[in-house]
Amino acid sequence: MNQTIILDKRPVGKPRLSDFKFLSEEKPQIKTGEILLETNYVSVDPYLRGRMNDVKSYIAPFQLNKPISSGIIARVVESNRTGFSPGDYVTGMLEWKEFQTSSGKGLYKVDAEKAPLSAYLGILGLTGLTAYLGLTEIGKPKNGETVVVSGAAGAVGSVAGQIAKIRGCRVVGIAGTNEKVEMLKSDFGFDAAINYHTAQNMGRAIAMACPDGVDVYFDNVAGNISDAVLFNINKFARIVVCGAISVYNEKSLPKGLSVQPFLVKNSALMQGFIVNDYAAIFPEAIKQLSEWMVDGKLAYTETIVKGFDQIPQAFIDLFDGKNKGKMIVKI
Amino acid sequence: MNQTIILDKRPVGKPRLSDFKFLSEEKPQIKTGEILLETNYVSVDPYLRGRMNDVKSYIAPFQLNKPISSGIIARVVESNRTGFSPGDYVTGMLEWKEFQTSSGKGLYKVDAEKAPLSAYLGILGLTGLTAYLGLTEIGKPKNGETVVVSGAAGAVGSVAGQIAKIRGCRVVGIAGTNEKVEMLKSDFGFDAAINYHTAQNMGRAIAMACPDGVDVYFDNVAGNISDAVLFNINKFARIVVCGAISVYNEKSLPKGLSVQPFLVKNSALMQGFIVNDYAAIFPEAIKQLSEWMVDGKLAYTETIVKGFDQIPQAFIDLFDGKNKGKMIVKI
Repeated sequence: MNQTIILDKRPVGKPRLSDFKFLSEEKPQIKTGEILLETNYVSVDPYLRGRMNDVKSYIAPFQLNKPISSGIIARVVESNRTGFSPGDYVTGMLEWKEFQTSSGKGLYKVDAEKAPLSAYLGILGLTGLTAYLGLTEIGKPKNGETVVVSGAAGAVGSVAGQIAKIRGCRVVGIAGTNEKVEMLKSDFGFDAAINYHTAQNMGRAIAMACPDGVDVYFDNVAGNISDAVLFNINKFARIVVCGAISVYNEKSLPKGLSVQPFLVKNSALMQGFIVNDYAAIFPEAIKQLSEWMVDGKLAYTETIVKGFDQIPQAFIDLFDGKNKGKMIVKI
Repeated sequence: MNQTIILDKRPVGKPRLSDFKFLSEEKPQIKTGEILLETNYVSVDPYLRGRMNDVKSYIAPFQLNKPISSGIIARVVESNRTGFSPGDYVTGMLEWKEFQTSSGKGLYKVDAEKAPLSAYLGILGLTGLTAYLGLTEIGKPKNGETVVVSGAAGAVGSVAGQIAKIRGCRVVGIAGTNEKVEMLKSDFGFDAAINYHTAQNMGRAIAMACPDGVDVYFDNVAGNISDAVLFNINKFARIVVCGAISVYNEKSLPKGLSVQPFLVKNSALMQGFIVNDYAAIFPEAIKQLSEWMVDGKLAYTETIVKGFDQIPQAFIDLFDGKNKGKMIVKI
């Protein structure tokens, strides 16, 4: 039998286990031109929350009673398609199923010899690309500038901060536990880090960690933390709006400080993006990320949870900050 | 005697007449290298409100008990400086005084033959430059796109909308009276206009006026109006944050919809600016604006109030939307 996970109910606020449903179905058979895939690693990501709402966005919402999909590493177990052989590993957007068939469209082969398989969901996958392209294409950090990263201990944030260090910036991370704060400084080389749960006054904490103000803010969280950063931005600051995890689960439209006066005062820029906006330059970006990884300049952390049945819980845990770095489920 | 207007108290919320004080002083005498100026036209602008607070901004705050300054057209009445002759007209940031001396620094001569003097405070001055440079450098409207302008009947908004029309866009204005709405359509060639005081649901009104969504939003107001526009922006929308008049008088920090989820969803950009950011390209911008004006492609409206003693009231009236187009006080 083959297990699959469908969206049973659209979450209201924070997702719950009861929003998901496990189904058992026959293991699929491949047809001409198809391959059979066995899921090995499943990426769970905050942005999936947005797809669980029935609203227009940059990517179509998940349908009720249909399998959820996300970034997955899978092994080819049978192939009726030239170019794919049993034993190959592929990555792409696939469904939350133990086994599934595919035409191969939208899948890329990955090399298990060159890097651990899970890295292709993280630093060498959309996570690394998101950090690299958001930071360099929008943030454009210059040598000597100050870069603040929120959600800094998360998958994207930890990479963004390290790339800013490579670019010669002072890098300050914001995270939610003392352990994460220590990790940012010791494992990822951040110059300073702030625990937003214990800081008495975030605006002042940021000001102290950024004596020359904030030139680039790589924002994964929005909400109060980002409001506090606004008070510290410099003239011509760039705010990379990568995510807004703090508000994804709000049931009404989230409110915050009006950003407009801060943007006018500082001639500052705020820009949202999704990584696919930059698909044309993925190859060169992956080349750069691989080089840095091989040179030991980019460390990465993963939280790996084991078991197909743990996928929904791992996803939910993202919103409590239970992951350090990339959250991945190993099947 | 010579009348001058000083800032007597920093306004709390909306400015009141009692925040200003009229003083009489001796008419000044010029020294070597100086010129004596007689004020003819005084520009009152929403951004002056920000300078009345004692906070760091892109421009130093006004000092208490000192004269206020703004864009002014003045006539040279005496000159001890080469390059300036009695009868010349100049423009620049000058003080709210009937007569004042100057070294000539920061002043530009204007030609009363080429255009009405007041135009140099408006369409051929910082107002026109703000509209043109904000729209073209940040908004970058393309032929066939939809451009929404808030504060559309104001000095900057009416010019921004007309330039967007010249660029081949569908242009929708937002203003606060039916008379202004009519003026936008009949005098300035806007394709549609919305009265935000009478619209039942601004989000829906904008959606109806913009069947293809909003590509560029030229924002002079912030607040609820801008929140309503956010629901209608397209992928890769550009929001030009020119001003935030709706929140300038708030006594606590203004709150609004969190913009981050909208920016991420749409890969949209929001950028603040002040016109001086683009000082290097003022000459070519003024050339373009003059050409359009001569060709009859740019209409402009002024609200001219008469009398030096009316300056504070004219400024206060900006916040009640009593002006159409540029608000100017003629002395």
